[in-house]
Amino acid sequence: MADVFLYDTTLRDGNQDRKISLSLGDKLQAAKLLDSFGFDYIEGGWPNPSNPIDVEFFKHIGEMHLTHAKVTAFGSTRRPNILPEDDPLLKALVASQAPVKTIFGKSWDLHVTDVIRTTLEENLDMIESSVRYLKENSESVIYDAEHFFDGYKANPQYALDTLKSAELGGADFIVLCDTNGGTMPWELAQIIQAVKEKVSTPLGIHAHNDSGMAVANSLIAVQNGITMVQGVLNGYGERCGNANLTTICADLVLKLKKDPFCAKNLQDLRKVSLAYDQIVNIPSNVNAPYVGDAAFAHKGGAHIDGVMKVSRSFEHVDPQLVGNKRVFVASDQAGGSLVVEKVKELLHVDVDKKDPKIRELLLLIKKRENDGWHFDSAEASFEMLVYRTLGHFTTPFSLENYRLIEDRTMQGVSVSQATVKLHINDEISLQVAEGDGPVNALDAALRKALTPYFPYMKNVRLDDFKVRVLGSNVGSDAHVRVWSTFGDETDTWHVAGVSSNIIEASWFALIDGLTYKIYKEQKNGH
Amino acid sequence: MADVFLYDTTLRDGNQDRKISLSLGDKLQAAKLLDSFGFDYIEGGWPNPSNPIDVEFFKHIGEMHLTHAKVTAFGSTRRPNILPEDDPLLKALVASQAPVKTIFGKSWDLHVTDVIRTTLEENLDMIESSVRYLKENSESVIYDAEHFFDGYKANPQYALDTLKSAELGGADFIVLCDTNGGTMPWELAQIIQAVKEKVSTPLGIHAHNDSGMAVANSLIAVQNGITMVQGVLNGYGERCGNANLTTICADLVLKLKKDPFCAKNLQDLRKVSLAYDQIVNIPSNVNAPYVGDAAFAHKGGAHIDGVMKVSRSFEHVDPQLVGNKRVFVASDQAGGSLVVEKVKELLHVDVDKKDPKIRELLLLIKKRENDGWHFDSAEASFEMLVYRTLGHFTTPFSLENYRLIEDRTMQGVSVSQATVKLHINDEISLQVAEGDGPVNALDAALRKALTPYFPYMKNVRLDDFKVRVLGSNVGSDAHVRVWSTFGDETDTWHVAGVSSNIIEASWFALIDGLTYKIYKEQKNGH
Repeated sequence: MADVFLYDTTLRDGNQDRKISLSLGDKLQAAKLLDSFGFDYIEGGWPNPSNPIDVEFFKHIGEMHLTHAKVTAFGSTRRPNILPEDDPLLKALVASQAPVKTIFGKSWDLHVTDVIRTTLEENLDMIESSVRYLKENSESVIYDAEHFFDGYKANPQYALDTLKSAELGGADFIVLCDTNGGTMPWELAQIIQAVKEKVSTPLGIHAHNDSGMAVANSLIAVQNGITMVQGVLNGYGERCGNANLTTICADLVLKLKKDPFCAKNLQDLRKVSLAYDQIVNIPSNVNAPYVGDAAFAHKGGAHIDGVMKVSRSFEHVDPQLVGNKRVFVASDQAGGSLVVEKVKELLHVDVDKKDPKIRELLLLIKKRENDGWHFDSAEASFEMLVYRTLGHFTTPFSLENYRLIEDRTMQGVSVSQATVKLHINDEISLQVAEGDGPVNALDAALRKALTPYFPYMKNVRLDDFKVRVLGSNVGSDAHVRVWSTFGDETDTWHVAGVSSNIIEASWFALIDGLTYKIYKEQKNGH
Repeated sequence: MADVFLYDTTLRDGNQDRKISLSLGDKLQAAKLLDSFGFDYIEGGWPNPSNPIDVEFFKHIGEMHLTHAKVTAFGSTRRPNILPEDDPLLKALVASQAPVKTIFGKSWDLHVTDVIRTTLEENLDMIESSVRYLKENSESVIYDAEHFFDGYKANPQYALDTLKSAELGGADFIVLCDTNGGTMPWELAQIIQAVKEKVSTPLGIHAHNDSGMAVANSLIAVQNGITMVQGVLNGYGERCGNANLTTICADLVLKLKKDPFCAKNLQDLRKVSLAYDQIVNIPSNVNAPYVGDAAFAHKGGAHIDGVMKVSRSFEHVDPQLVGNKRVFVASDQAGGSLVVEKVKELLHVDVDKKDPKIRELLLLIKKRENDGWHFDSAEASFEMLVYRTLGHFTTPFSLENYRLIEDRTMQGVSVSQATVKLHINDEISLQVAEGDGPVNALDAALRKALTPYFPYMKNVRLDDFKVRVLGSNVGSDAHVRVWSTFGDETDTWHVAGVSSNIIEASWFALIDGLTYKIYKEQKNGH
């Protein structure tokens, strides 16, 4: 039985991060990811007419068939001086049909009188009546006590009264929020102890990182008996971010020896963290605790020597427990043997590092990695490079040329037209196609040219397409990395392309993506 | 009189960060910066024959005429079974002539027996004799007890004995190091209390962030009576980084009400943080506590409304105290009142929310935000939209058409050629240009067409260019957001462009970026 519940608000509070703007597709994909890792609650958004994406999210989340997580819809207590059932925002919350509802209310007397401008008594009733109303329509209701710690410091009695109102209304969890992120851990611990004397409802913590304390405050709350932790994957969020649920998860299991539901999937932690960064197209923080590329990277010579002698003497946990690995930064040899391992895995044969073909391959991989290919997130491009270099596979077509024409007129009409000329089986395949943008046009022309020879090509989907400019302050001739996901009936695969020309980088990715399909079919004897 | 000393190891431990490699010039420049802010100690490096830059640093640091900071040279205790005066690394430390020496020694019995492979007794003597030897040649000696917390957990008596040896040798400070960064704050507090019962030398803390606890552990150490904090500006360092001295400094002054020497310069905190990022050429963390661009950025509509009413209700400290400022992010979640505020600020006149022109503008802004323009990071595009919609500015040219041709041949040669046809002052300006990629070609053609009419255009730089595909699972016809930075002799400005066509999105950004220059010049009467 889990002894602590993880409540993920990546899709709601995490979406307040300036760097992030989730589409409906992003949200649904991320919800699947968060569920697969084993978070207990996933806060999907604030469904109301101003947030059409969130309204749609709750309509479609059922189709994702989540296995464990409870989906929660976020909102606030009713407005002053109306009935809960007449409040349009509460009605929108009910209409979302989310099994769990989470609403925030005011704990700080200053906010009641000067921000929402009502009486202290009315605010207590707003909390109690809103919770009670939602309870009638929900499996459970979670009450977020906004600015609780600041409120307690200003007026402890009133802040506690607001929690009692939520308890009377029937809240299943009362979450103490350090909304402004300014509370120090020792204050937080004292205030939680005071709350526990007055409130018997299970408690949660919601921390922000404005003082650099979000993770510490969350863990200290758990040490003080709190059983729900709210946070955001990789610590995204408004201002300085929410509590980093990635770090918290590892700390809870490995340091506090807690047993949340997701503990059994801890070895997927790094994978999940990187996958979310891929969804939001943000470069991953290499220094992130537990999951960053550098989290177990040893640079100093003395350290490396020590790790070689007694690894636990220089590592606070075993990197494999969180799906990460030890890296020796000074040693290029380490990189080399890693690639050899990968190649062995692909080819199912032993591989000699001194074989000239392997040496050529290692050099090529190293060069491309330096150019920014990042093969770790483009395994199909990696495989294509290995198979081609070692002569295990030959692309069954070659490019004579492509031409892309982009026109825009005074009336604001844009047209993208691509011509592709390929050599296939000693024949010429020349095709032209238009598309919604240059990549779409090139993709369409390329398929049109390939499909007569490889009919299964029509089942290939281009599922995702992302672009990143590598390096800043370099003007429009910077290197560009294109990354895309392809899929068919049974698989998905990822490819990358790098060039100073965005069209060429896209072309490399398209070629790898479609050629991988041909490779797959040939391997299966088609 | 200062009640806590800040010991900066940006130049030594911070330089172990994978992203950083400081030159001699960088180190000297950074030392000047760190001193000007008022850190008490600056650890310059480990001067020995393997680190020639560090040897040079100590030769040249005198020329920098530091005003307050004491420069310290870092090293380790002597090797087993020799005299300190015969140890080449200790001799190199003395030769540096740094007024303060900091040496680390082993606290963890496992390290003594299995890593440096000597007896527990010899290690105690190594510590005591090395400290004593350096004291004869230095103003003061600081002893770093490496892996102290892990050592204490393994063998408390021996770990304490190592500290007593440093005390006997005459150490001026004994610094407890959480070298692997795995210690939880409550363990740390208990262990510090145990140390204080046995050791009377002033204590320091040196924390790493492998569990996300470096800042919290440093502050909790101070709460437990520790009087020296070691850390690195902006939290750089090996693996997950050292304790972030930027955050710690603000927390110490504003939250713990401590009075370190640098407290009087707290309003320079953001400036110093950004200046160091400039030296190491790393993009600043926008979400950094206190100093990040987003640290006081308000995005949610309800929040902004609250800040307008009572600012302290939504900010844990006054941003000016750390040299930062409040920002209202013009996102779709923000209410109309925010946009009105921004428009007022731009036009320096009062603006009526019910004015039909303003309503039209608000709707347009909202629509574009929904499309993904993110005006908060593209203020020049925002201004252009406001001025054009309200009739304050008319773009002095119009597009008849552009045509972009991308060719790639069998030999792998790519060519980008752009043709641009503009109407300017009743004339036609038709130009063609080639470039390294489509955006570069369009940019070149556009400038070629504009420069004869607007000669200052030749001073405009395109400094940065980024692309993001908005939304996943949507294939290559997804919406694309292009974001770029332009600059001239005096200013930089940011623009965005959104379209389903990446070329068109780039075009919008280019047009806004170059038109903004024309607007600027016209405003200045040129």
